[in-house]
Amino acid sequence: MKSEKLKEFEYIFNPKAVAVIGASQTDDFTQAMMSTKMKDNLFLVNPNRKDLVGKKCYASILDIEDEIDYAVVAVPASLVPKLLSECIEKGVKAAHVFSAGFSETGLEERKRLENEVKEVAKGRIRLIGPNCMGIYCPKSGLSFVPDAPTEEGSVGVISQSGTFAEQFSTIGKMRNIRFSKTISYGNAIDLDCPDFLEYLADDPETKVIALYMEGARDGKRLKSELGKAARKKPVVALKGGVTKHGSRAASSHTGALAGSPETWRSLFKQAGVVQVDNFDELLDATLALSCSPLPSGKGVSIITNSGGFSVIETDSCVKAGLEVPEFGEGTMRELRKIVPTAGTSIGNPLDAWPIYYNTRSVSGTISDATKLVALDKNIHSLVVHFDELRYLSRVFGETLEGRLKELVDLMLNGCEYVRDEIGKPVMICVSLEAYSEDEEDRRYHLMVKKAFESKRFPVYSSLNASIKALFSLYRYRTRLR
Amino acid sequence: MKSEKLKEFEYIFNPKAVAVIGASQTDDFTQAMMSTKMKDNLFLVNPNRKDLVGKKCYASILDIEDEIDYAVVAVPASLVPKLLSECIEKGVKAAHVFSAGFSETGLEERKRLENEVKEVAKGRIRLIGPNCMGIYCPKSGLSFVPDAPTEEGSVGVISQSGTFAEQFSTIGKMRNIRFSKTISYGNAIDLDCPDFLEYLADDPETKVIALYMEGARDGKRLKSELGKAARKKPVVALKGGVTKHGSRAASSHTGALAGSPETWRSLFKQAGVVQVDNFDELLDATLALSCSPLPSGKGVSIITNSGGFSVIETDSCVKAGLEVPEFGEGTMRELRKIVPTAGTSIGNPLDAWPIYYNTRSVSGTISDATKLVALDKNIHSLVVHFDELRYLSRVFGETLEGRLKELVDLMLNGCEYVRDEIGKPVMICVSLEAYSEDEEDRRYHLMVKKAFESKRFPVYSSLNASIKALFSLYRYRTRLR
Repeated sequence: MKSEKLKEFEYIFNPKAVAVIGASQTDDFTQAMMSTKMKDNLFLVNPNRKDLVGKKCYASILDIEDEIDYAVVAVPASLVPKLLSECIEKGVKAAHVFSAGFSETGLEERKRLENEVKEVAKGRIRLIGPNCMGIYCPKSGLSFVPDAPTEEGSVGVISQSGTFAEQFSTIGKMRNIRFSKTISYGNAIDLDCPDFLEYLADDPETKVIALYMEGARDGKRLKSELGKAARKKPVVALKGGVTKHGSRAASSHTGALAGSPETWRSLFKQAGVVQVDNFDELLDATLALSCSPLPSGKGVSIITNSGGFSVIETDSCVKAGLEVPEFGEGTMRELRKIVPTAGTSIGNPLDAWPIYYNTRSVSGTISDATKLVALDKNIHSLVVHFDELRYLSRVFGETLEGRLKELVDLMLNGCEYVRDEIGKPVMICVSLEAYSEDEEDRRYHLMVKKAFESKRFPVYSSLNASIKALFSLYRYRTRLR
Repeated sequence: MKSEKLKEFEYIFNPKAVAVIGASQTDDFTQAMMSTKMKDNLFLVNPNRKDLVGKKCYASILDIEDEIDYAVVAVPASLVPKLLSECIEKGVKAAHVFSAGFSETGLEERKRLENEVKEVAKGRIRLIGPNCMGIYCPKSGLSFVPDAPTEEGSVGVISQSGTFAEQFSTIGKMRNIRFSKTISYGNAIDLDCPDFLEYLADDPETKVIALYMEGARDGKRLKSELGKAARKKPVVALKGGVTKHGSRAASSHTGALAGSPETWRSLFKQAGVVQVDNFDELLDATLALSCSPLPSGKGVSIITNSGGFSVIETDSCVKAGLEVPEFGEGTMRELRKIVPTAGTSIGNPLDAWPIYYNTRSVSGTISDATKLVALDKNIHSLVVHFDELRYLSRVFGETLEGRLKELVDLMLNGCEYVRDEIGKPVMICVSLEAYSEDEEDRRYHLMVKKAFESKRFPVYSSLNASIKALFSLYRYRTRLR
């Protein structure tokens, strides 16, 4: 049985036909929807054009013969009231106002204009915005992100900021996040963050909710909806404007009121929401929550072929709030049998580079080491590190590609056992520098990344990111209690 | 006039001839030095080979007719005492023992072996190591990093860990850091961190010292040398093993003793050293200190074309310890003349995306905005952000490459004025995702990155990294007082 909000919002996320008012050659909406399944139910409105991107262009939404249930209004702010009235006349059920230049400017006449829009819409049409990007829903093809995945996924995103929503979808795609719905809600003069929270909480297609907000009109309702949602599925939140200066910036960005950092921290905590510190942490935590089991404790083991970093990364784990305990004696004994002594470190972190080269013998492989470590009762989760391609390349020589595949198969074998049989989370780190221009190096790293992604492991380009994401899993777990 | 250490260490950093004992087809030293100017003065020793990489291979160092002043010993640990004796007999002045398998294993017999090596060397030859990568010095061609820059630079690196030193040089290269000397000193049974600090402090080729250490034998001397060095040039340090678990990992990694986090924090602080938290921060701070003026206060302005992030990044600045103050009224008035109202935010951060498109009119460009902002008395430094290539590409269409060059010229014009005429630091952020596979996008971002690097600006792939590096500049500045 569907909840009220699910029924009510059906035409917002899954409209049958969409009009873009103020369509142009380059607007995000037209661009995006021309490559989704919405293409054939997309209608473009622009009085100055006969056609656009091979489609007929209407002078007014009223000229369209088909029924339209959803409109994107992308015209100068001053024209919004008039065009919105036309949408109402046409029988459109929900409109997304992309246009900026309202209360967020801080100017009195712009606030008045925003109120005018509100009055026009009240009780006649549901509004998303203004000053936002609207809705991206791969299932229906409604979209504002030309580069977003067309496949459906399980992550629901609610963002006050449009750029944020767009980048979350685009960069999320590179990090193997797939979305059920992304919502950019801007100045929220009608539908607001709590409405979308209520919807996503009940949405069976959404398994994890990622939230970016800069302020709230109704703190009480927000808290209540956050709490309700967090009892149903993981909610990760980033609050922009938590500092004094940030809050000033937020008020000029979306016109939102912002409380003190402490207020927000306690609000999220009480609601059972995992609060993160920045954009990357939000992506990284969302990825982990969308595909990993939760750790039953703080004990992490790091398995690496790059010992120089294991010390720093142990520090990072502990600073993050996790632990890197010693292995039990049995584990140590077993590990000693398979890892050579020189230049390695039998212990946690497991700096065991020689086993990364052992892809062809029956025992003493990275798979064996991974399983051994994960069976240790002090260890509740693993971070498995792929690095040092240059050394692997040196040792494997011309057979590099084949041997890497063998290595990755062994790593996967161990990691799948740990996740699927033992039920402990495994975070994968495939180290890659943003500015690296070594194309071969990039190609191999991406090959390894994708191998792990194809088995639904969360993969990160830095150990720090893996560790922080793991800590978010742990925090979610402890909040459930 | 050269200091003692400079004279004494001349043969360590600038040896006339180098022997690699235990050379192989794939060892780092042979690989690296075959492509530096050391090539012709490189001698390979391996009793099992007649030749290697096109060079004659000697059975023993004693068979070499030329004088050898520096040897790399890369043989199994148990053979080190014998081969070191031969080095002494040959008249070698300094040896770097690459071999691992000594005290860092925690095994008693290995500690005894390390002591034996120490006894053999004492008073007869200077030792670097064991269990380390030794020296990389582009000026002489001595090297252990096959991918390191061959050009000389101004950054001196001292690292206990070999992997760390190697990665710092390799990844540093991608981030436009160039080195005077990199030293990996490992178990330090003879030459230790303070010796190298003393040397780099006086080395006229080194302008910034980056330090990674896991522990120290002689804390008093370390503190004294850190203080002396930091009075002469910036010293940035990362201490591995600051947490309880990290310290356990450190002791098994290089056999070093580690103090409490508080001890280290206070030691660095008293010495005037800028302490950072991880590998990336060390690289990022080192880059900034190697090429930027210092900010005279905490006031930062962020100029961006990606407003959705300016709020979060303002928070990041404030959390880091900086400030994002409001502009003075005069600045606001002038900015309003050149930045359109809708969807922008006249204020700090300056979310002024339309001016990024204005590459062809005489006024109201990004150059004008940058200068205006930097002249504000509340602003002591700038972070200039290049992002949203997709939008730029949409607007510029086929003229993208040319227009980007115009945009970058304008940005450079403004930034150079700010740095060189006003004397305020400018950090550049060219956002790029490690896992991005959009080759055109990568190419344009790298083009922009290199344009800024060619004018010696510090460039970072994330705003967070730029902000943290800026804060390191600020911390160094305040420590000088």
